[in-house]
Amino acid sequence: MSDHPLDAAIALSPQGEHTSRGRTSAAYANMIGPFGGITAAQALNAVLQHPELLGEPIALTVNFAAALADGEFEVTARPARTNRSTQHWIIEMRQGGATVLTATAVTAVRRETWSPPDPPMPEVARPHDVPLPLSRSGVEWVNRYETRFLEGGLPSTWDGSDLGHSRTRVWMRDSPPRVLDFASLTGIADVFFPRIWLRRSLFVPVGTVSMTVYFHASAAELQAIGEGFLFGQAEGQGFHNGYLDQKAQLWSEAGQLVATSHQIMYFKE
Amino acid sequence: MSDHPLDAAIALSPQGEHTSRGRTSAAYANMIGPFGGITAAQALNAVLQHPELLGEPIALTVNFAAALADGEFEVTARPARTNRSTQHWIIEMRQGGATVLTATAVTAVRRETWSPPDPPMPEVARPHDVPLPLSRSGVEWVNRYETRFLEGGLPSTWDGSDLGHSRTRVWMRDSPPRVLDFASLTGIADVFFPRIWLRRSLFVPVGTVSMTVYFHASAAELQAIGEGFLFGQAEGQGFHNGYLDQKAQLWSEAGQLVATSHQIMYFKE
Repeated sequence: MSDHPLDAAIALSPQGEHTSRGRTSAAYANMIGPFGGITAAQALNAVLQHPELLGEPIALTVNFAAALADGEFEVTARPARTNRSTQHWIIEMRQGGATVLTATAVTAVRRETWSPPDPPMPEVARPHDVPLPLSRSGVEWVNRYETRFLEGGLPSTWDGSDLGHSRTRVWMRDSPPRVLDFASLTGIADVFFPRIWLRRSLFVPVGTVSMTVYFHASAAELQAIGEGFLFGQAEGQGFHNGYLDQKAQLWSEAGQLVATSHQIMYFKE
Repeated sequence: MSDHPLDAAIALSPQGEHTSRGRTSAAYANMIGPFGGITAAQALNAVLQHPELLGEPIALTVNFAAALADGEFEVTARPARTNRSTQHWIIEMRQGGATVLTATAVTAVRRETWSPPDPPMPEVARPHDVPLPLSRSGVEWVNRYETRFLEGGLPSTWDGSDLGHSRTRVWMRDSPPRVLDFASLTGIADVFFPRIWLRRSLFVPVGTVSMTVYFHASAAELQAIGEGFLFGQAEGQGFHNGYLDQKAQLWSEAGQLVATSHQIMYFKE
């Protein structure tokens, strides 16, 4: 195992047929509890390290049932159905006996098929031509990602003005850099900050309720991307009575669409 | 209970604390087994009719683990976590003891908040100005929906030419018409035919692996839409080595974004 903080954060100790134990990581601490993207990566890792795993992740949905407390958790990943080339997983994370996360995953052995060119990513400046943030964040997990914003960064003034849209374009990778894999890609898919902060220029309480990631690349393709950046584009769709949803796409520097992702968040006010 | 075929199809008989029994419906038969949208509606209905239900659906993810056989199934819907205003569900459907579907749902009591105008739906002809299909479908479930295609209907010639995009715009409602609710909206979210048939003008084997629906309207708002049409827009994103994903939005005739939806399908060739 590398000594990268992501590897330390997602490490799990098997405790039985389908159960493992892990713990939250101070390196990925959020304002309250851990960064959701790392919790999602931990849930996926329970599948990835399961001895009965068939194939590679195709789809992951995680539902955040409660804020995790700092400390230990237990995660069960059960292969509910194993077919010839696909496998269906039910995942549940608990602390002190109470469910804090539910999830499902689909893994599959992929075959080569007709694969047309991906939808082209927007023409934007290359990562190293885009400035880094000037200061370290007070929120620790934010420092675990190198983010270079092309558009739609955090508001510079929180004056409550309606921006009318909520699109972000950003180059992202782990910090320090780390070779891409399914766990790190899951984390990166959750790096976009809440769309409502951007849309309203207002810091309102929020939390992701459910997040889905569809994986469009194999383990080998992710490894080939290595420590390269991903180009992420995210935008809110519906904002209605306490919940908003976000669509997102993630491309490699070479223009491969490696994942699409969606999430629904609650917000107050 | 109404005598609408949808109500008959989603009817479940409680068998225990979290378990109900249902059966597939000939009215919603697909080429093999039932229409996935109705299976998703049945899974959601196990939550909707659960005596411990809190609030209304916010998010639903269903994973199709196996083709359902025509006949009976058992569905368990367990509230894994109940908070003050949100509830997290784990759902599993079985036939002959084997898992055929896994799912998660989030329900919530919503409050009025800042809710900006929805992203505008495209300016298109009104439903009654768009022609109906000329003939009845040989696939029974298709006849359970009134679909009026504005763009991206089924290819008129299956000649294998790459259309270069896969966008469909269509007015949809139940047939016969039925007052909209969460169960019928879930079915309608899956009415879009496989994006790869449109993109490639080629009839290849396909099947939905995972579908997510985010609900942006309340039960009362859906009821107010009544028997009105929904405008649906769907488009494929990534098509890669056997799997493709689809994004979709559903608006009411009045322009309310009632749901966003995503799915990932396998395809052969």
